[in-house]
Amino acid sequence: MRIALDAMGGDEAPLRIVEGGLQALKEAGNRFELVLVGRKEEIEKETSRLSATGLNYSIVNATEVIQMHETPNTALKQKRDSSIVVGAHLHKERKVDAFVSAGNTGAFMAASTLILGRVKGVGRPAVGTPLPTVTGTCLLIDSGANSDSRPQHILEFGVMGSIYSREIMNRSNPTVGLLNIGEESSKGNELAQASYPLLEKSGLNFIGNIEGRDILAGKADVVLCDGFVGNIVLKFAESILPTLRKRFKDYASGNFFRMIQAGMIAKTLRKVLKGFSYEAQGGAPLLGVNGISIIGHGSSSVLAVKNMVFRAEEMVNHNISKLIENSISKIESKAH
Amino acid sequence: MRIALDAMGGDEAPLRIVEGGLQALKEAGNRFELVLVGRKEEIEKETSRLSATGLNYSIVNATEVIQMHETPNTALKQKRDSSIVVGAHLHKERKVDAFVSAGNTGAFMAASTLILGRVKGVGRPAVGTPLPTVTGTCLLIDSGANSDSRPQHILEFGVMGSIYSREIMNRSNPTVGLLNIGEESSKGNELAQASYPLLEKSGLNFIGNIEGRDILAGKADVVLCDGFVGNIVLKFAESILPTLRKRFKDYASGNFFRMIQAGMIAKTLRKVLKGFSYEAQGGAPLLGVNGISIIGHGSSSVLAVKNMVFRAEEMVNHNISKLIENSISKIESKAH
Repeated sequence: MRIALDAMGGDEAPLRIVEGGLQALKEAGNRFELVLVGRKEEIEKETSRLSATGLNYSIVNATEVIQMHETPNTALKQKRDSSIVVGAHLHKERKVDAFVSAGNTGAFMAASTLILGRVKGVGRPAVGTPLPTVTGTCLLIDSGANSDSRPQHILEFGVMGSIYSREIMNRSNPTVGLLNIGEESSKGNELAQASYPLLEKSGLNFIGNIEGRDILAGKADVVLCDGFVGNIVLKFAESILPTLRKRFKDYASGNFFRMIQAGMIAKTLRKVLKGFSYEAQGGAPLLGVNGISIIGHGSSSVLAVKNMVFRAEEMVNHNISKLIENSISKIESKAH
Repeated sequence: MRIALDAMGGDEAPLRIVEGGLQALKEAGNRFELVLVGRKEEIEKETSRLSATGLNYSIVNATEVIQMHETPNTALKQKRDSSIVVGAHLHKERKVDAFVSAGNTGAFMAASTLILGRVKGVGRPAVGTPLPTVTGTCLLIDSGANSDSRPQHILEFGVMGSIYSREIMNRSNPTVGLLNIGEESSKGNELAQASYPLLEKSGLNFIGNIEGRDILAGKADVVLCDGFVGNIVLKFAESILPTLRKRFKDYASGNFFRMIQAGMIAKTLRKVLKGFSYEAQGGAPLLGVNGISIIGHGSSSVLAVKNMVFRAEEMVNHNISKLIENSISKIESKAH
């Protein structure tokens, strides 16, 4: 198995990215090959710093870098030799089995969708983001690939999310909830109202509507929504820990006793909130493309990158794209 | 001034509700009259328990109660003598200047809109919910009254939210952000894309798109969105503190040392998160109806009810509905 890693993507690329990739390789005892995509010299500087001799990696040179805040479509057109475009082509040509990036999310999603193409029967690939809950982890899908989805797309998100939850998140019969603003089937906007009956007869383990408060409570294993809503919820959720941290800092600032107090609490708080960090989650898969694409947080740490590489390996082993294709075709034949 | 309070609305009604109302009256030195609407005997039991003699209150009898989980439209039709319907009629007939309820939110919104009617020029009344941020408080509007809003409605939310932020939340020139999934004007769903240019030329202090992460960061004083999105964000936000609490409990459970530790931390955490509780916020106004309607949290405490009554007084004093009417007509004449 060969897993490509965008060495240039992320706030601390290639530094933390290469380190995370090599660490995965080391822990995995070289059972797969890591393909580092990006500026060769810069990557080599890191691999020699990290004494990577003996590790099963290779480098594919890509001279350009798409920066975090570039407009995806423009960047993809102008930077044909960027790590994101080169990596997606490697994947398309099946020279690698998966491609992982913590770089420009929009550009990575667009490159994956355009270059790899969609799984047969999938109208819109979607991002599934694992979110911590009080009981474990749920999958929020779509968390940002699509705006103005149609009911059929929401159904597809349900199918893809259920497969991911079952295969990768180890739920034997994942519960699927439709994110809405009330419990009854008649509630919500037009999209939610029209999606509900499709989900009801889908054969998925559909538990009906869930509300914003039910996400963290862990009411559903798979939380379905349009990507506009999902992305806003995701980014709001990601801002909670930084907000807490800022509040603590303000509370403690300039007061010695409080500083000591805050320091003591911070340690416990970290334990209490263990698992609420994105690092452990292994990135967010873009489900429904012809391949395995995993999106990482821009500020991915070494640990986060390592977990993303392992997640990619797992997804390849479970043949997620094939499972999606089979399930989608079953749902379609049912509908006709 | 006369402020009506739905004595039967809320998880601990009439107990906590009457107590909160009377406390407001006491602190205000009887400068307004409190009109308690609901089952007379039940209310009187509370007023005598609380020795309310000398306080400037009256009771308007309403024999029925709309429960928290009844379907709003059905409940309104069937329970003509409920505290919500009776209170809205009192307000419509200008026997009271404001009406406050912590009861069934859907029923209260529907009763307010149908019975009071809309401010001239307002297409859709909207709920503005104050949300704590790291820098203070922002207003999330619409946080649940409307799904499938049109761009013109988003503009109206901006006008109404700005007035509320300026008059009641003391922002001299409130910044207005459009909740979206990217910064550029071309980002987002069709609604966001079409709303952006309207806001740009509105004369509001429009700062462009903001993302989910910018809400708690306090980037905008007024956060604009469709009520479907707003309600999901609001309920998600409301679930954060209970989630933290649950995590702490799980962490401490069955371990004596950790229990002591968690107890010590809880106290500090409460201080750190001061202001993050809904209680201090004084409820959420339904803006754009012909009158002053304030919606309270179902689990409103005595403190929360007291603050809602004071908020109603403030809104009456600032003549919010009249200000909205004037501003909407200015925006309309600009558009033509």
